[in-house]
Amino acid sequence: MRKLVIDGHSHVTIPIENHIRLMDEAGIDKTVLFRTGVHPELKGSNDEIKEEMQQLQKYLTGDPAIADSYGEAAHEELFKAINKYPNRFICFGNISLNKDLGTMTKNIQTQISKHHILGIGELALPSGQIHKLENVFKASSQTACLPLWIHCFNPMTLEDILQIEQLAKKYPSVPVIIGHAGGSNWLETIDIVKRNPNIYIDTSAAFSSLVLKLIIKELPDKTFYGVDYPYGDMWVMRKMIERACPDKNIREKVLGGNIMKLLKIE
Amino acid sequence: MRKLVIDGHSHVTIPIENHIRLMDEAGIDKTVLFRTGVHPELKGSNDEIKEEMQQLQKYLTGDPAIADSYGEAAHEELFKAINKYPNRFICFGNISLNKDLGTMTKNIQTQISKHHILGIGELALPSGQIHKLENVFKASSQTACLPLWIHCFNPMTLEDILQIEQLAKKYPSVPVIIGHAGGSNWLETIDIVKRNPNIYIDTSAAFSSLVLKLIIKELPDKTFYGVDYPYGDMWVMRKMIERACPDKNIREKVLGGNIMKLLKIE
Repeated sequence: MRKLVIDGHSHVTIPIENHIRLMDEAGIDKTVLFRTGVHPELKGSNDEIKEEMQQLQKYLTGDPAIADSYGEAAHEELFKAINKYPNRFICFGNISLNKDLGTMTKNIQTQISKHHILGIGELALPSGQIHKLENVFKASSQTACLPLWIHCFNPMTLEDILQIEQLAKKYPSVPVIIGHAGGSNWLETIDIVKRNPNIYIDTSAAFSSLVLKLIIKELPDKTFYGVDYPYGDMWVMRKMIERACPDKNIREKVLGGNIMKLLKIE
Repeated sequence: MRKLVIDGHSHVTIPIENHIRLMDEAGIDKTVLFRTGVHPELKGSNDEIKEEMQQLQKYLTGDPAIADSYGEAAHEELFKAINKYPNRFICFGNISLNKDLGTMTKNIQTQISKHHILGIGELALPSGQIHKLENVFKASSQTACLPLWIHCFNPMTLEDILQIEQLAKKYPSVPVIIGHAGGSNWLETIDIVKRNPNIYIDTSAAFSSLVLKLIIKELPDKTFYGVDYPYGDMWVMRKMIERACPDKNIREKVLGGNIMKLLKIE
């Protein structure tokens, strides 16, 4: 039986039919879809795209409160796309980091029951503020122990990733996905993922095939294929994984099996 | 007539026949080859490869004096590979940053006459030390005005890249290639390259196809295809460029024409 290919991390784009078409081209069966505050794919001129990317940087590295300004509309867009193609998308929800624990827990429960979310993310913070994630870990541990997907490329530092590790140790029932393989801190991230049963690694935004090869060799059961569409190219990222991983069994795990197991997808 | 495809940035690897085989697979006619202090491709176990990559980090981000410890042997390896396949490789030399201007100038002249170098690099420094490159700019401007190829991924910051810009303005006869598109600072790097006629951009270590597409659209005459082998995959990086650039004429320029023009290759 052919194994499912799952893009473990992409953002909702408009029109969503374009997304489906690109998934078909790359042979992706399902995509774990995340909300977004920006839509570079809708911009025409270079200047408009650059402006949108500047906005993205602000969202990724600015105060988490900024996310509240676009969060609700972004969620609606996400849920609409998933309702339209429920067999092609898997939903990760998100929550405001500025709410108290009770509100967070309630929000997660609502998103689970209404939108069947299987994880929470993309969680993005400025460097030095990982402590703001503690309530999310707590809320997840008190509900369905949904995995948390955390942006760990720039501006995240090794110190930030080490603090994520501390939270993962404190809440061992909560799976954590280190987004973008920890960026330039991939070498130390491999060891962090290896020594913590509840930490996993996403490979979107990979900038080196040699590094990717090493990550897969070191973490064959914990590495996830991810595209980060519209920033990555689904087809290119799949080829990159395939060429970095000659072993068919491990390749199938990285391209889908590992995340299916974590998310308990049949 | 078919246009040449040129990988604008890769390191010498052993055995060099492997390198040639991969160039053939990816349809690369010529590679601009740089020396290296590490050889992850020769290591067997994951631990050995990780150790080698740690060493690489030290070379890239440590005191430039470290390069002196391996520089001579690395040069010999490079020149040997190029002498074996003179039609497939273009040589970039390198110089110690700890020498006085007279010695630097003499070294460059020797490398030009003996090894026909067409550029200098990869120049890598810790963040905050770009001023150490001034003598290299001066030495280049006093000899053949060879292009300088500077590592601008992590740990380089935007401030470092802005200081490179200042040196490029002070020595307008010296072409500068911003390596790895400035890493996370690609957005500001686009504008820096655009406003300085003697600054160019290398795309190796690209981590986003959308970013790559924008760089090519903004800088169609100044963008170079680069693999950074053994870290990048020649075939994957070529496909990434091709998919990011639907315009055939611009694609040919990025894949070879632009760097041929800069290096005055027939």
